[in-house]
Amino acid sequence: MVLPGGVDVHTRLQMPVLGMTPADDFCQGTKAALAGGTTMILDHVFPDTGVSLLSAYEQWRERADSAACCDYSLHVDITRWHESIKEELEALVKEKGVNAFLVFMAYKDRCQCSDSQMYEIFSIIRDLGALAQVHAENGDIVEEEQKRLLELGITGPEGHVLSHPEEVEAEAVYRAVTIAKQANCPLYITKVMSKGAADAIAQAKRRGVVVFGEPITASLGTDGSHYWSKNWAKAAAFVTSPPVNPDPTTADHLTCLLSSGDLQVTGSAHCTFTTAQKAVGKDNFTLIPEGTNGIEERMSVVWEKCVASGKMDENEFVAVTSTNAAKIFNFYPRKGRVAVGSDADLVIWNPKATRIISAKSHNLNVEYNIFEGVECRGAPAVVISQGRVVLEDGKMFVTPGTGRFIPRKTFPDFVYKRIKARNRLAEIHGVPRGLYDGPVHEVMVPAKPGSGAQARASCPGKISVPPVRNLHQSGFSLSGSQADDHIARRTAQKIMAPPGGRSNITSLS
Amino acid sequence: MVLPGGVDVHTRLQMPVLGMTPADDFCQGTKAALAGGTTMILDHVFPDTGVSLLSAYEQWRERADSAACCDYSLHVDITRWHESIKEELEALVKEKGVNAFLVFMAYKDRCQCSDSQMYEIFSIIRDLGALAQVHAENGDIVEEEQKRLLELGITGPEGHVLSHPEEVEAEAVYRAVTIAKQANCPLYITKVMSKGAADAIAQAKRRGVVVFGEPITASLGTDGSHYWSKNWAKAAAFVTSPPVNPDPTTADHLTCLLSSGDLQVTGSAHCTFTTAQKAVGKDNFTLIPEGTNGIEERMSVVWEKCVASGKMDENEFVAVTSTNAAKIFNFYPRKGRVAVGSDADLVIWNPKATRIISAKSHNLNVEYNIFEGVECRGAPAVVISQGRVVLEDGKMFVTPGTGRFIPRKTFPDFVYKRIKARNRLAEIHGVPRGLYDGPVHEVMVPAKPGSGAQARASCPGKISVPPVRNLHQSGFSLSGSQADDHIARRTAQKIMAPPGGRSNITSLS
Amino acid sequence: MVLPGGVDVHTRLQMPVLGMTPADDFCQGTKAALAGGTTMILDHVFPDTGVSLLSAYEQWRERADSAACCDYSLHVDITRWHESIKEELEALVKEKGVNAFLVFMAYKDRCQCSDSQMYEIFSIIRDLGALAQVHAENGDIVEEEQKRLLELGITGPEGHVLSHPEEVEAEAVYRAVTIAKQANCPLYITKVMSKGAADAIAQAKRRGVVVFGEPITASLGTDGSHYWSKNWAKAAAFVTSPPVNPDPTTADHLTCLLSSGDLQVTGSAHCTFTTAQKAVGKDNFTLIPEGTNGIEERMSVVWEKCVASGKMDENEFVAVTSTNAAKIFNFYPRKGRVAVGSDADLVIWNPKATRIISAKSHNLNVEYNIFEGVECRGAPAVVISQGRVVLEDGKMFVTPGTGRFIPRKTFPDFVYKRIKARNRLAEIHGVPRGLYDGPVHEVMVPAKPGSGAQARASCPGKISVPPVRNLHQSGFSLSGSQADDHIARRTAQKIMAPPGGRSNITSLS
Amino acid sequence: MVLPGGVDVHTRLQMPVLGMTPADDFCQGTKAALAGGTTMILDHVFPDTGVSLLSAYEQWRERADSAACCDYSLHVDITRWHESIKEELEALVKEKGVNAFLVFMAYKDRCQCSDSQMYEIFSIIRDLGALAQVHAENGDIVEEEQKRLLELGITGPEGHVLSHPEEVEAEAVYRAVTIAKQANCPLYITKVMSKGAADAIAQAKRRGVVVFGEPITASLGTDGSHYWSKNWAKAAAFVTSPPVNPDPTTADHLTCLLSSGDLQVTGSAHCTFTTAQKAVGKDNFTLIPEGTNGIEERMSVVWEKCVASGKMDENEFVAVTSTNAAKIFNFYPRKGRVAVGSDADLVIWNPKATRIISAKSHNLNVEYNIFEGVECRGAPAVVISQGRVVLEDGKMFVTPGTGRFIPRKTFPDFVYKRIKARNRLAEIHGVPRGLYDGPVHEVMVPAKPGSGAQARASCPGKISVPPVRNLHQSGFSLSGSQADDHIARRTAQKIMAPPGGRSNITSLS
Repeated sequence: MVLPGGVDVHTRLQMPVLGMTPADDFCQGTKAALAGGTTMILDHVFPDTGVSLLSAYEQWRERADSAACCDYSLHVDITRWHESIKEELEALVKEKGVNAFLVFMAYKDRCQCSDSQMYEIFSIIRDLGALAQVHAENGDIVEEEQKRLLELGITGPEGHVLSHPEEVEAEAVYRAVTIAKQANCPLYITKVMSKGAADAIAQAKRRGVVVFGEPITASLGTDGSHYWSKNWAKAAAFVTSPPVNPDPTTADHLTCLLSSGDLQVTGSAHCTFTTAQKAVGKDNFTLIPEGTNGIEERMSVVWEKCVASGKMDENEFVAVTSTNAAKIFNFYPRKGRVAVGSDADLVIWNPKATRIISAKSHNLNVEYNIFEGVECRGAPAVVISQGRVVLEDGKMFVTPGTGRFIPRKTFPDFVYKRIKARNRLAEIHGVPRGLYDGPVHEVMVPAKPGSGAQARASCPGKISVPPVRNLHQSGFSLSGSQADDHIARRTAQKIMAPPGGRSNITSLS
Repeated sequence: MVLPGGVDVHTRLQMPVLGMTPADDFCQGTKAALAGGTTMILDHVFPDTGVSLLSAYEQWRERADSAACCDYSLHVDITRWHESIKEELEALVKEKGVNAFLVFMAYKDRCQCSDSQMYEIFSIIRDLGALAQVHAENGDIVEEEQKRLLELGITGPEGHVLSHPEEVEAEAVYRAVTIAKQANCPLYITKVMSKGAADAIAQAKRRGVVVFGEPITASLGTDGSHYWSKNWAKAAAFVTSPPVNPDPTTADHLTCLLSSGDLQVTGSAHCTFTTAQKAVGKDNFTLIPEGTNGIEERMSVVWEKCVASGKMDENEFVAVTSTNAAKIFNFYPRKGRVAVGSDADLVIWNPKATRIISAKSHNLNVEYNIFEGVECRGAPAVVISQGRVVLEDGKMFVTPGTGRFIPRKTFPDFVYKRIKARNRLAEIHGVPRGLYDGPVHEVMVPAKPGSGAQARASCPGKISVPPVRNLHQSGFSLSGSQADDHIARRTAQKIMAPPGGRSNITSLS
Repeated sequence: MVLPGGVDVHTRLQMPVLGMTPADDFCQGTKAALAGGTTMILDHVFPDTGVSLLSAYEQWRERADSAACCDYSLHVDITRWHESIKEELEALVKEKGVNAFLVFMAYKDRCQCSDSQMYEIFSIIRDLGALAQVHAENGDIVEEEQKRLLELGITGPEGHVLSHPEEVEAEAVYRAVTIAKQANCPLYITKVMSKGAADAIAQAKRRGVVVFGEPITASLGTDGSHYWSKNWAKAAAFVTSPPVNPDPTTADHLTCLLSSGDLQVTGSAHCTFTTAQKAVGKDNFTLIPEGTNGIEERMSVVWEKCVASGKMDENEFVAVTSTNAAKIFNFYPRKGRVAVGSDADLVIWNPKATRIISAKSHNLNVEYNIFEGVECRGAPAVVISQGRVVLEDGKMFVTPGTGRFIPRKTFPDFVYKRIKARNRLAEIHGVPRGLYDGPVHEVMVPAKPGSGAQARASCPGKISVPPVRNLHQSGFSLSGSQADDHIARRTAQKIMAPPGGRSNITSLS
Repeated sequence: MVLPGGVDVHTRLQMPVLGMTPADDFCQGTKAALAGGTTMILDHVFPDTGVSLLSAYEQWRERADSAACCDYSLHVDITRWHESIKEELEALVKEKGVNAFLVFMAYKDRCQCSDSQMYEIFSIIRDLGALAQVHAENGDIVEEEQKRLLELGITGPEGHVLSHPEEVEAEAVYRAVTIAKQANCPLYITKVMSKGAADAIAQAKRRGVVVFGEPITASLGTDGSHYWSKNWAKAAAFVTSPPVNPDPTTADHLTCLLSSGDLQVTGSAHCTFTTAQKAVGKDNFTLIPEGTNGIEERMSVVWEKCVASGKMDENEFVAVTSTNAAKIFNFYPRKGRVAVGSDADLVIWNPKATRIISAKSHNLNVEYNIFEGVECRGAPAVVISQGRVVLEDGKMFVTPGTGRFIPRKTFPDFVYKRIKARNRLAEIHGVPRGLYDGPVHEVMVPAKPGSGAQARASCPGKISVPPVRNLHQSGFSLSGSQADDHIARRTAQKIMAPPGGRSNITSLS
């Protein structure tokens, strides 16, 4: 069975944490990817303190170009809001081939974004024709829970999952969806780890929101009971955010939604640290560097859970492991398709192969594999990258530095046709009314410069600026110029029902 | 038919806006309440800038004691976070008979509360045995939408509803519920105006969250299509937040949930302004003082929509108009019950009376009644307050200043029995593990004083403090002291399933 | 803590199966009830073949009057449809104190009721002011699955649960609710055993259907994994329909819905058979007599799962174990309340007592207890029945034959106020139109006697009766007498929105 | 914009009703199809009384071959259950190119199918590799409602919609889905007319059921308020089953689900009758021949409601108007694709064209068009069928009899890959137990021949056959041969969680 090579939509092979770099770098990580049947990765650029988005991008390019064994592309994380953000995003989009940017709803006091900032960033992203990615967790609550647990003396990895309850993830998804709908910006939720989060995405999709969800190898292939392992090193290997969910039925639910099209792509969020690196947080779970493996196991885990179980057919497998990613991020049909003209990234898949995942045999630089012991049917027999065989008979033939950067264009049709149509429709008109010429209460009207919205005087308002004498107070004529009440309603109501529609809001919730 | 006098859980008869006070003050407002069959109100104390919660409370007491025609009690709004908040709340609870406090999720740059602040306030409130009330709207999004609409030239009242879409209300409810569940604090959502918000409450209730929802006369008795009225003054009369929803099926949905017990109480959020006062915002909808009428119409509207329509029986009517309020806010059975020993606040209800609501006949100081023309079956024939007949044969006999303040105690059984049981259960224990004595990566460990949580070093972290040499780096022994992996799981998992239960989270969503 | 004695809404102490009678008869069963704090039971009269409802009722009365140790009342099961059913029900209601009747949607070829029959029976029951109880399972599917499993060679108790999948229960609830809503008849679902069934009830309630759900001790206190026990006798002890659900999260979900008011009462469906009796089906699971224990354990199981876990307070416990039952079945406040004038059926409850349920100590005549090993906090310290102490210091003092029959009146307010209001509203008027005097196609009009509905000639119809010449074919005038199209709509649409409302239908699903 | 020609999945151009044939026959109907951009139709064979499925099929072939202007294919309706049904279906599948069969859940006493029959037919269909189509309405309830309404004197078309409430449609969908899941048969719901029905499909899909839903032009483009029209002829033109829903938000909801992939295809269910034909039921709405127009309007209505509104992009439009149909019914890529090797059925689509639908300009033989006055953006500019231009510049060039029959193969990959995988997995094993050798109660064991399931002796059982002496009664050994209780559970539980998964059942409902 010949398939397009897999596309891993989320890796972090260069993620800086406390000055440490991940155990699996671009070289090792892409090698593991190829071993698992993935021939392209999308890595996240995470700018370190004081580094601009553009400089960080260049750092990533440099490292990846010299080390990657397979083709790659880049997302850029927005780690702080600043005035020149618009210019930076524009440059990345127009000159650097980046079309997706991630904002964080968690990690308070570091890179957490407020709702206002999200709204503004989403508006910029929409105008640029890119995608808004979101790390969805309520950072405020997480921090409060972390404090509480540390005070209770909980310092081990179980504290990580206890301080990141499922609701906190679902809440953030719900909020991100609300903001994206208002801003008419396409939304992409990274790392869908829980039933609650996945359901929030599915329901939003049904209300017409343009939203995509990315479950990862960890959420599809294992569960979070291991945080309570008595083996600290093993428990620590599972630390990532949002955490792997302890509810053992999570994977089954996520694969159902992946099969029904409510979730569309699969990544690995591969970001690994050795036990010694994880041990930085041995006395405080909040200091454990976050991230799990999954780059190598992704294709087999999805096959096992979705195809071997009868939830998907082979075409749907290809869709969620490569084609949808290529369409969403706009490098289809170069990738994600077996056709003349497409890149020669191919996998010969053996649906009958069976293997048991183990740290003993994986292609990673870490001591623990979070899927240890998981048995998967389905494995790549031959992997071809850029026309060259890189895996055959279990042997790998990779060359660091041969991976190419794949630039991406904006306004992907798969995503933006609907967004554009809505933009066209979303013209809002006020109600034409005659001038109100009745009495006006004399009041302290705010003289504050700037938008009137900030000077809002409504219900709980207290404004202490000097009063301005209102000039319209002379007469009293309510009947005067007001036009008929009954005619305008019909047209006005059009405004009330934007595309995607208010009336659906609760209907499937 | 003799019923306990109605209890209006939400009024704002003294609400200061831009130096203006509402058209219906304590005297007029309570008179209207009595006219409609309501014999007790719960008014919100809203501290003006620079006024402490305690001082504001005293202001309210003074005004109400001298003017109220019926018994009253007070909620206190928390308009800003400050260090001494805990002491103020404690004093109000212990000395002043207040057991409910409201925080605002909207009104950015004035009284909006962050998620962290909510978590902390909820924790204080829970320890005091009071209720956390929430004005649920995402203020960040509202502000952005207001800006956008004003830029588009929309200045009329339709801009108000367009800048407060239903999703923004539902989102805030969802978030408040999430925070309250984490803090194990009873939650009370004021002004449930939309299907989305009501559904979010119903679902949370089903997941075991202790949450109450308060639809108001406006959301039960009319709809928001009037914002598009060509008559500016009429449209402005509907301006309140969250807005009256334009979806005409909203009232039917809310009455269904009120009948099924998913919503429990009804208020009016009565806060009225004359047309001249509203006209302060004639050129900018964000300056229109917010608030609608409903104190007089509440009982009849609920009867018409719920009892006359066959959704409720008379007992349920009493529950949602008085008894539940008395139980939640802990003045049952003094109010909310017809019994020996209870206050003599009674209504003789005539289910066959029919009347058409109109500004021509209402007992209010405003020109417009938002229920103009609504026909209601059911009206009070006789109203008795503190044992005296105040309404009979359509005539009123009220005496300003006779209304007494009703103090409320903490830890209402109706609310807190469950909260307490959960507190007892919520003891969390860490996993007992041997010391990790393997290698630890040498790293910049944060020397930042304070909680480790703030100094978290995980995934997206950047800390530039001096390194601390790790002393455990000498050996390498992964197998050493780690205990068995399989024994501890069972007990540990207890932690994973707190009362109310994680496993239900998505099951009814 | 003094509570009203428990009311068990569902027992089968006399249920005939293959000529066998249950191991726990009226004497032993009521003794066990009292031991657990239950002072009244509602037993189901199940007429054997050829026995009329009235005769069966008399049989039950005779046996119970001579043997019962506590007060009791009776429901009557309708095991087959016949012409005189209306008269029988009327006699039972008017002369015998019965106000609830059960129909079966399962047990094909024996007592299964078709949808048409249910509709008609529901209409009769509504007119009589009684309650329609339903055993909700799709008997057609169950039978097909039983056949299939026996053909596959599955003969043990696991075949029972495999042939009664959860969907089959949920489907039947959904259907019963639909029929009851159409017939405007109050509905009561016995034995709510699964999340799917409970959710279907909760959603219907939210759409305004008058529906009650009865989870039982077994569904609240254990799970169906035991059907796979290697001990045949133990597995067989769990055989009941609908089966105890194998999903281990079921009990948690049901207790959540019981706490939120979506489910209202608890029964035991106590119907026990000894291992020797169960062994009749040792080679064929379809021959195992159905029924589990629970009469003695009910109060403690509900306390443990709901109160001790913090989901309910004590008042809610009383509601779901006695008060709601008394209100629904119309013997409140005689039972279900601690008050002057109520019966002296009381329990002194010890919330701190802890006991482990076991067949070694239970008051039953069977070898296996399905709750074996379950630990419950909460137990009765003293039980008083009809003013006499029947349990104290662990000792029982019961007298067979002292239990009295409690007759029940019709039209319970708790149930029927809403039904009546809807009946009043449900007047339907046709659209007034002029006579259609246009051409009519000449056609084979059915001469079949009886209702026109049965002779419907629409889409997929084939009727071979002789044609009738249509006399209206002479002219052609479409414009003639038809009145205006635009005026009548408004009134007509009232018909479209019956109470309970169409518009809510999908809103919470 | 060049698109594949539309595929209308549901027409009834030859449907016999009371000896009448539809106004638009194969010639007129296919001409109208082409005029609207549809180049292939799938018509339903409906066998008249006493006609076998095969004979009916041949009748349809004969008429269509001589009259159709575009390619066509056939579904066959199963109008009654009979012993030789399996052979007939097998012949149609293997020799006649039919791969979809429709059963009716309504039309009692004519073609309504019981649940048992559906289960058996679904099992046959699954083994043949075909699709089970279902007309989903609860015929029992409909008939009861029809009787009731006629008794109330309601005889006009409003009686039709009043006797077919939305719940009756949703209930049937829910039931069909339950049966299909048990039988592991792919399910296809024709004529999705209401939010309730659509939601039931969406939720089933999310639980892993292989189910497809077909909204039609009428449910997407108009609403059922017209049943209350004072113009009888107009009201009658809307009579179809399930009826066009009076809830005006239905179309918006269905288009949302069509856009999100929860519904997959669109048909017209075109089946028209002239006013004179409809007038057969002028005195009794149950005699009005059922069916509405839509074959010509479908493509434009879908474009207007889905693409012009910004809910879909062009690719999704092609999917729901042709490609998905071709994949589901297994004639892809011959149809539904623009590619070398595919049939030359093409449409040049003008997204900017605007037209108002009217009976004055339609290509139909009926006086009323149910979309009268609806304005649609988007229309075909040129239509090419079998390589010949059939529409250009608004002129049609069609030749009756040129339409070819398109035979369809079984086991479409798009549908059956998942079904097959599940069949493989669904092997069930009983629990291996030692022989039960304890005592067995002596009982009347049924000697009834046939399957043990029919002779079930459990709970409500009454069997009067002669007793059979049980021979196993000699010993009593409960402890004896029963094996360990704890070992077998793990494997046994695999049985409990079939693919698609029980645990998801309620999670999104």
